[in-house]
Amino acid sequence: MEITKDNIADWLKKLQYSICQSLEAEDGLAKFKEENWIREEGGGGRSCVIEQGNVIEKGGVMFSAVSGQTPDFLFKEKEHSISAINSIKETTFFATGVSIVIHPKNPFVPIIHMNIRYFEMSNGTKWLGGGIDLTPHYIFDEDARFFHKQLKAVCDKHHPDYYPKFKKWADDYFYITHRKETRGIGGIFFDRLHENECLNFEKNFAFWQDVGETFAPIYVTFMNKYKNKKFNDENKQWQLLRRGRYVEFNLVYDKGTKFGLETNGRIESILMSLPASASWVYDFKPKQHSEEQNTLDKLKKGFNWI
Amino acid sequence: MEITKDNIADWLKKLQYSICQSLEAEDGLAKFKEENWIREEGGGGRSCVIEQGNVIEKGGVMFSAVSGQTPDFLFKEKEHSISAINSIKETTFFATGVSIVIHPKNPFVPIIHMNIRYFEMSNGTKWLGGGIDLTPHYIFDEDARFFHKQLKAVCDKHHPDYYPKFKKWADDYFYITHRKETRGIGGIFFDRLHENECLNFEKNFAFWQDVGETFAPIYVTFMNKYKNKKFNDENKQWQLLRRGRYVEFNLVYDKGTKFGLETNGRIESILMSLPASASWVYDFKPKQHSEEQNTLDKLKKGFNWI
Repeated sequence: MEITKDNIADWLKKLQYSICQSLEAEDGLAKFKEENWIREEGGGGRSCVIEQGNVIEKGGVMFSAVSGQTPDFLFKEKEHSISAINSIKETTFFATGVSIVIHPKNPFVPIIHMNIRYFEMSNGTKWLGGGIDLTPHYIFDEDARFFHKQLKAVCDKHHPDYYPKFKKWADDYFYITHRKETRGIGGIFFDRLHENECLNFEKNFAFWQDVGETFAPIYVTFMNKYKNKKFNDENKQWQLLRRGRYVEFNLVYDKGTKFGLETNGRIESILMSLPASASWVYDFKPKQHSEEQNTLDKLKKGFNWI
Repeated sequence: MEITKDNIADWLKKLQYSICQSLEAEDGLAKFKEENWIREEGGGGRSCVIEQGNVIEKGGVMFSAVSGQTPDFLFKEKEHSISAINSIKETTFFATGVSIVIHPKNPFVPIIHMNIRYFEMSNGTKWLGGGIDLTPHYIFDEDARFFHKQLKAVCDKHHPDYYPKFKKWADDYFYITHRKETRGIGGIFFDRLHENECLNFEKNFAFWQDVGETFAPIYVTFMNKYKNKKFNDENKQWQLLRRGRYVEFNLVYDKGTKFGLETNGRIESILMSLPASASWVYDFKPKQHSEEQNTLDKLKKGFNWI
């Protein structure tokens, strides 16, 4: 396909539906509800939300394609001269993407997040971003290895530097500074591909598509593996506490969430990432040598899971 | 008493205990657990936490007195010349305060928050700040009136401008911009008293002490009034959703929380404000003409509750 913004948005919409179908099939009970919304300032989106399923307690597969005047805070994190910022101010932008967060019922099924996005400005600047990361309530080494191997395979197909680079990026990004914990076992994260990456835009686009397509098979594997595993109240309580950390990350650090809140985005779509329920217990400490403590010990940057 | 930083800290510690006693007496079941902590960079605090009481599900009455090199981000929100910022950089600071958040079990008992704080720098700058605000899960006009009347009485005793000014400040501060909702029915909020307020420091200090002392009688009134009121699952579910909003406010907007997270504060004390449990439901809408809808309709700035 020719890589135009309309084609990219169309491809993302198809990906959204195909992911919803895979998740529904494995869930076996709940169905995604679809909602189309329009953004006053330009563009809109299609939210697909699933709740109270057999496996998924709350999940969203959200597509959006928005446009308008480029907000200058987008460029705050990069150093720009005043004249560069002024020239950006006069441009319009277009951004499209698919964002997914799935919170499962069973504490042994991990939380997963995927996002792929495309951004362009009327001055010709354009880039790709995205990533997949996993937040198990309980970390099992074999699952962590499987997950990272899948991501490495997708990366290696396109460029040998991508997995190590984007794995580190995920470790650094999905970090809850105030807890000194990673959000989960990371995965891959990348942004502004094309501006400064090894491959040309077309080749990076192929990589980016592969990332999107690898989501469903990976997560369906975990759903299937753990959906019928027995769990007790202690497991459930631990899941709620880990979800609390997820809430902390998303509200305090997540750039997508901040961008949404600051650009008058559609709140229900942005905060879809929050779990159906979460807990906070004052100064909770897991028992020594417990599975919970084992998980905490592994929430560190720079783990080589493979 | 002579107003020195040590005397202020001592007074706050006594206030902390006296508040804990009042709350325990009305709760009738749980007791506060005390924990003393030390901050590496200077100072420390005493956390008093109560959990799983008869009336209080989770609550904290936290004292702290910390000191060190003045962090320059403290002054970002005010316009300062570079030379002024440089001169601040060379100062040390001392900050002490009592912070309270109480999350009750019964959805008809409101959530309450109180904070009073004192700040000084080695260059002689000093100020007082604080406030009390109420977040009912269900707003009852007569309670809102009672609450605001109590606060107005405390303010009016000291200066006629204080209630209108600090009431508006609370409306503006406790606002969840992305939800276009106030957090609750507000109350009073003030900061940097003395620098720019009507009364001299000694007189403002007396006002500030009165604010601290008015907390317990107000909240005990609400605990007593509603602790035995029957509630159903729908009421409980609504409480969890309102708590979700409370989490959103505290993690996204609250300056005290941000200050704590950015200055390597004691995380468990800072995030004590979060409830034991909270919920998020996608695009939840209360039934028309319900008590829940009535509450939502009143979460607006500028309501005259009296």
